[in-house]
Amino acid sequence: MKIKGKEWKSLWFEDGLIKFIDQRKLPYKLEIFTAKNVNDCAFAIKEMVVRGAPAIGAAAVYGMVLGKNNINKTKDTLRKTRPTANDLFYAIDYMIDKIKNNEDPLTAADEYVEDIIDRCRRIGENGEKIIKNGMKILTHCNAGALATVDYGTALAPFRIAFRNGKKIFIYVDETRPRLQGLLTDWELEEENIHHVLIVDNAAGYFMKNGDVDMVITGADRIAKNGDFANKIGTYEKAVLAKENNIPFYVAAPVSTFDKKIKDGSLIKIEERKREELVKINNKIIMPDWTKVRNPAFDVTPSEYVTGYITEEGIFENLKELQY
Amino acid sequence: MKIKGKEWKSLWFEDGLIKFIDQRKLPYKLEIFTAKNVNDCAFAIKEMVVRGAPAIGAAAVYGMVLGKNNINKTKDTLRKTRPTANDLFYAIDYMIDKIKNNEDPLTAADEYVEDIIDRCRRIGENGEKIIKNGMKILTHCNAGALATVDYGTALAPFRIAFRNGKKIFIYVDETRPRLQGLLTDWELEEENIHHVLIVDNAAGYFMKNGDVDMVITGADRIAKNGDFANKIGTYEKAVLAKENNIPFYVAAPVSTFDKKIKDGSLIKIEERKREELVKINNKIIMPDWTKVRNPAFDVTPSEYVTGYITEEGIFENLKELQY
Repeated sequence: MKIKGKEWKSLWFEDGLIKFIDQRKLPYKLEIFTAKNVNDCAFAIKEMVVRGAPAIGAAAVYGMVLGKNNINKTKDTLRKTRPTANDLFYAIDYMIDKIKNNEDPLTAADEYVEDIIDRCRRIGENGEKIIKNGMKILTHCNAGALATVDYGTALAPFRIAFRNGKKIFIYVDETRPRLQGLLTDWELEEENIHHVLIVDNAAGYFMKNGDVDMVITGADRIAKNGDFANKIGTYEKAVLAKENNIPFYVAAPVSTFDKKIKDGSLIKIEERKREELVKINNKIIMPDWTKVRNPAFDVTPSEYVTGYITEEGIFENLKELQY
Repeated sequence: MKIKGKEWKSLWFEDGLIKFIDQRKLPYKLEIFTAKNVNDCAFAIKEMVVRGAPAIGAAAVYGMVLGKNNINKTKDTLRKTRPTANDLFYAIDYMIDKIKNNEDPLTAADEYVEDIIDRCRRIGENGEKIIKNGMKILTHCNAGALATVDYGTALAPFRIAFRNGKKIFIYVDETRPRLQGLLTDWELEEENIHHVLIVDNAAGYFMKNGDVDMVITGADRIAKNGDFANKIGTYEKAVLAKENNIPFYVAAPVSTFDKKIKDGSLIKIEERKREELVKINNKIIMPDWTKVRNPAFDVTPSEYVTGYITEEGIFENLKELQY
């Protein structure tokens, strides 16, 4: 991703240290958090210095490099950071295998991270094919380079289309309660891609007025039948897109497809703490007595999805996807 | 409306003064703003001490009482406060007629305000008939007593149902950007009606999960064919309600129906300033560079409306409504 005109990644390994763009400080400050040891790396994952499942996986493989002399302890420390990110456990197991096979840990970790980047780049290249010059596209949350080391998933096609000279305009949902739209706003601003931030309530307004040609979001988990879980509000945008005959695409690597889950009804939705809703940037915006409910994700049925943009191609029918 | 167990109105006339619940301080503080003269009253309307079209009309008739000795100047001062609220101009003209006919200004103003209250009460009584015991109902924005002197429009049926002993549960959309959901949260809290606040993104989630039996919102303006303008996000909730087979009702007095407007496409939507989106309670929550668009209202086509709850009855077909 471009930041101040230069190429960056959300995290990288350098001189025996893991360097992270500190996402707790964004979009206000670009600061680097340095992990010198396994505990620092665990802190970075737990405290959301780094966020987004693929980026957490990348942090974990480099964490295993830092803790290669005591694999069991390292594994235990890293596993305890975030309970739900599948990529975390997958990445740790990948490194244990490599180390047991006497492969060089740093080489194995670099390969893992390069593979993530490569898959996102291919998602971008595949998604770019359906973006026409002049298109106006809406996205929800941040499925960007910050969450995936580089390119992003939903944002990857925008990057490639823009770099190929296509004129595009992006509507960015602010994505309450956590306002991840501000991270997308920041990524697009740094990339010089035209865009505007809107409240989540206004997405339907712009769709109905003919101002949105396409919707692309990321996904946290995709069931065998194509139902998918993603940030709360994704379902609303999908229903509104269908009602207004606007194509709705989900961009995600093949690793997001979980064929063990038959359909979306089996995906458990996490309800998160009240604090997320009543505080913004640590400032309280609601009275003490206000009771809230705060589901963090929702499930969108496959009938609302025009296609799935993956590194293997775009699939309208998941039966075509061999995974 | 009930506040701390006692009956209140959003504004009233007392000993030659207009008293307002200062809505700028809500929901954090219950403070009374006193208007001693026409300029004070104009300030209250302009600075949103009082908000909501019917409540603004009520403020204006009492403003005319305070300025009855110089009608022309009073009229000019009050007219300049808010450019778009139709009730303001209607209320001023009503008082000019009464004063020219040598009627007592305070009696005329009281009658005007009593009429608003009576219509809202009847909206509540009519709407209450379709609320079944145990129902879970979603509302958007604040169409409450604060906006209408007493009872409210969308909130009136909730009040009457609750007072009649029906168990109800209300989902309150927070209603970004201005978070008017907090005013609804406050009104329902004071009335002891069970409710919960959710982000606008979560309304679809609860609808899809079968947690919402009905949606009731207010309306700012209803066209001849039933299309209506209301707070941004109303259209989204209406589409989601239809998709999930949930009845969607609009509660509004007959004065909100504008038969001069053929359909919703003729209703002009105001885009408001950036500041509304990037500040909450005067605290900045977004970076300086973030570009926004901020449409304040949207138009929901009549096909999404199950019925219109008015003081004259509930109409599924507007041809039945003689206005």
